[in-house]
Parts: sequence; structure tokens; C-alpha cells
Amino acid sequence: MRVARAFAPASIGNVASGFDCLGLAIRPVEGEPWGDVVTVRAEGPPLTVEGPYAHHLPDDPTDNLVLRCAGLYASELAARGHKARPAALTLHKGLPICSGLGSSAASVVAALAALDAWNGGVLADALLRLAGEGEAMVSGAAHLDNVGPSLLGGLQLCTSDGTCRSLPVPEGWRLCVVHPPLRVPTADARAVLPSQVPLDEAIQYWQTLATLVDALHRGESSRAAEAIRDRLIEPARAPLVPGFAEAKAAALDAGAAACSLSGSGPSVFAVCTEPSRAEAVLSALAAPFGPGVRQAVCHVDPHGAVVEEA
Amino acid sequence: MRVARAFAPASIGNVASGFDCLGLAIRPVEGEPWGDVVTVRAEGPPLTVEGPYAHHLPDDPTDNLVLRCAGLYASELAARGHKARPAALTLHKGLPICSGLGSSAASVVAALAALDAWNGGVLADALLRLAGEGEAMVSGAAHLDNVGPSLLGGLQLCTSDGTCRSLPVPEGWRLCVVHPPLRVPTADARAVLPSQVPLDEAIQYWQTLATLVDALHRGESSRAAEAIRDRLIEPARAPLVPGFAEAKAAALDAGAAACSLSGSGPSVFAVCTEPSRAEAVLSALAAPFGPGVRQAVCHVDPHGAVVEEA
Repeated sequence: MRVARAFAPASIGNVASGFDCLGLAIRPVEGEPWGDVVTVRAEGPPLTVEGPYAHHLPDDPTDNLVLRCAGLYASELAARGHKARPAALTLHKGLPICSGLGSSAASVVAALAALDAWNGGVLADALLRLAGEGEAMVSGAAHLDNVGPSLLGGLQLCTSDGTCRSLPVPEGWRLCVVHPPLRVPTADARAVLPSQVPLDEAIQYWQTLATLVDALHRGESSRAAEAIRDRLIEPARAPLVPGFAEAKAAALDAGAAACSLSGSGPSVFAVCTEPSRAEAVLSALAAPFGPGVRQAVCHVDPHGAVVEEA
Repeated sequence: MRVARAFAPASIGNVASGFDCLGLAIRPVEGEPWGDVVTVRAEGPPLTVEGPYAHHLPDDPTDNLVLRCAGLYASELAARGHKARPAALTLHKGLPICSGLGSSAASVVAALAALDAWNGGVLADALLRLAGEGEAMVSGAAHLDNVGPSLLGGLQLCTSDGTCRSLPVPEGWRLCVVHPPLRVPTADARAVLPSQVPLDEAIQYWQTLATLVDALHRGESSRAAEAIRDRLIEPARAPLVPGFAEAKAAALDAGAAACSLSGSGPSVFAVCTEPSRAEAVLSALAAPFGPGVRQAVCHVDPHGAVVEEA
């Protein structure tokens, strides 16, 4: 093998109803996929960063998440008595950072998946856990709701026992996704959260999540879409995303079944249960943010990380 | 028709993981079913109360929940342009009140189901809603997590939109249920709840509930049973039930997969995923409460309310 390469897709964390436990891998219906790519070769500098969002990353390459994941991977290999093959990494940074699109998760997953292919797949059973640890280096906690879908694809229910389970998503669903030209660091978005929540609002929240999981298993599209809502976390975070309230109202007016922040924002998403409405919803969702937005009608990416070897 | 009679079973509200949204209808594996029976005839006093727990009810019959449900039923009939047939009711009070076994819900459901049979079944589509309203006359809020399973049977996910959905339960499960000789009024059990809960504990709670709903749909018995737990509500209520901590520890030691309060207590339940362990678990669960407990190994009652006409 001369080259191992892994693509890891963008993802919508939380999906409104599943704060810290639901995540959805996405892919634009048309055009290039959204995600990061990591390529591994035997020779070259330890890390080369390229791509449209390369300039978002710190200048000091030792600070780069991909290199830190390489260290994590090598440590795990060593703990199992293996030695990592020499690796020169290239990160194609396709996702903007602090975007709410699972950018750091995509880098983590692409790096680990590429490195594991490069090393013969010996840590396949540990990639999800390692990805959680990699994400924790950025966000401070091993939430799996972005790395889970970015690695495994689909809509993942990721729980505190370290497992992710794929939930069925109705085939016709489209996710309209808009990334306004803002950055909301995850740490800032965590800082606005209340440390305590009213019990009655928490009850509403878990009733809604339980309804969503149940409706998805039953294949009840409308009932599931109605259960994608968040009256607990979203109100605290919405002020960090100027224009969100107008965008949400416009998307719902245009026929979206649900609309919320993607992860901790600033990206927003709307769910269309009928594909024919998706373009109109996307336009409505994007308009309040003015020029400079990145936007796409997406569907669920069923694959997650995709590895190529040559 | 000379007589209409309805039986409504006991139920476990909350089921640990689904506070205010999960409820499970139960039936002892051996012996008589646990529940209330309401009989309707054309002639006689408005209400006769009999059965082992008749003495638990207020002496003033106009205060009786069953008569108030008859009023609710007649009002709904009148609103639809029908007139209620004259009805003389007999309540066989088979469940102790303030027991955590859905006693008031069983009275409400048995009354409404019997009255609807007596009146030709014209309000069949409204019985769940009316039962919620009947329950609210006692508990102050229209929670469906006892009336839902008592009416419909099975394990019900009851949400704030007024719907209940039956969740699949693994066939081998047994519910060991013990009712200590105490009364915990629902209002008292609500009063000890915190008005605010830590966000991180609420997150754990909804992750667990989502895992339970998912695991039940997949038929994953062990994973589902592990997701029957409550670290949020149970600690606040456990002090109302002296002996609970010892009983829970003993039940888990004896092989129970889960153990918690039934509804707001004082009854307690333990889940056995292997029927062969159920008797030992029941003994362990009952011992710390001393003499005078009511106890049974139960399975899920799949039927809910059962109506007979003669």
C-alpha cells in the first residue's frame, strides 16, 4: 500500500431532540460531499494542511488535531504491542471550524480511519472510542454525537456507555443545511447553557426524544419529524446566531417539518419530509443570513467514513 | 344488555426511566389478577363499593372517583348529542389506594370502559382522553402513564400530545412487585421533587430513556433491562419508602436486572429477564419490608381493560 485515504462526512449534532446523544451524517444531494479527507503516505512532512478551510487551523502544526489523533492512535497500537508504520499525513480541510457541522469530528474520524487502514485495520474495534477521545481533546468531553455519525454514517443514538446505534430515517427526508459566515466555538456554546433546568421542561424534552426514537423505529415520518424540536437548549443558544429566529420561521413557513441549530450552531438545519419542498425551504432558511452562507439540500449519508487504499 | 362489567389492571407508572411517560400494565403469573372492576346495571343505588380495599375510599359517595367519572362520561356524551342510559354502578375495589400500583387509574378506566359498553361503545375513540381527565381529578395533571396501560395494556409510551404507543416487551420478562403496607399520596411524592434538575443529570436521564425505547424496538432484552434505571427522581422519593434501599440491593443481588419504585411508591418493582430467578428476586425484594406486604411475580398484561356484557 502506497497511500491510504479516508473521507469523513459533516454531521448534525444533537438533531434538536437528542442533546449530547443524537447525530446525523449528511451529504449534499448534488455536488461535492461535505467533509474532511486525510491521506497517509510513507514519506513527507508529518502534516500538510490544504483545502478551502486550511487557513482556519492553527499555524503551529504540533497543535493540529490530526497530529494529536496520530499520537492517540500510535499509543493505542503500542498498548497492544504493535508499532505504528511511519506516516506522513495530509489533511484536506473541507469543513469550516466552529461551524456546527462536526468539523473537528470529521478531522478526527478521517485521521483515525486513514491511519487504521495504513496499519492494516488492527484497531477497527477501537475507532469509535478513540474518536471520542480525539473529540474530547477539542470539546473537553467524549461526546459521540458527531464522531459517531461521521464514522458510522446515518442517524446515530450515542449514549454514555460509549455505544452508537443506527436509527432508521425515512427515505424521503431531506436536510436543508445553512452555514452562516460566523464562528461559534463549542466552548462558548456550552458556556451559555444553564447548569440547572426546570424539571417540567426536562420532562417535555425526554418525552419528545422518546417519541422520536419510537416513531423512527415505526417508520412514521410525520410523527418523527414533529418530534424534532428543542425548547430547552435552543433558546439558550439561539442568541449566539443572529438571524436564527427569522430563518427558522421562514423555513417552517416554507414547509419544513422541523428546524433547529446544527450542533451548537451557527449552522442551522431544517427537515423536509417531502423532497419537493427542499429547495424552497433552503432558500427561506438561508435568506435572513445574507450573503456568504454555505448551503445545501442534503440527505442522510449512510456510509460515514470511507477509506480508499492504493 | 342487563349488565356491563369492566376490569382494569394495576400498572407500574414511570418504569424508572420514563418519568411521566412510561407505564406498564401488570398481571400476576398465578392467582387472581390485580385490578378494579366496575359493574353497571340499570337499577340500584348510584354507587355501591365493595371488595378488599373498599374501606380505603371516602365515606361520601359523591366524592368517589367512579361517580365523578360517570359525570365526565355523561358530559362528553351530551356534548355529542347523546343521552346517557341510567346507570347503577358497583365498584369492586381490588387495588389499595396510594400504593403506586395505579389504583386510581384502574378505577377511572374500569368506570369509563364499563359505562361506554353500557352506552353502546359510542365514545370508544375518546376513552383515553377521558381517562386522562379522570386521573387529573385525583393527581392534578392529565398524566397518561397509568391510565394508558390500564386501558390499552402492555408497556405504553404516553406523551404530552395525548397519545400512547405500545412498546414491545421481551417475552421472558417478569416483574416482581411488592406493595409494603404504607400509603404515599401522589401529591406528597410530587412535593419532594426538585423544581430544577442539574442539566448533566437530565442528559443522562434522556439518554437512558432513548436507549430503552431503542433496545425494546430491537428486542434486545439485556440492553433494555439495563436501561431501566432512574438516578434523577428515585433518589428524591426513596426516603418516602423506608426499606427501599435494602430491598433494591437485595433484589439486584438475587439476580434482578433492574429495580425501582412503582410510580411514586411505596410499591417497588424489579425486572427479571430470566423467569427462573423471579421467585428468588421477589422474596429478596419483599423481606426488608417485613410482614403485611402484598407481593407477586407478574408478567405484562397485554390486554388492559376487559369488558364483559350480559
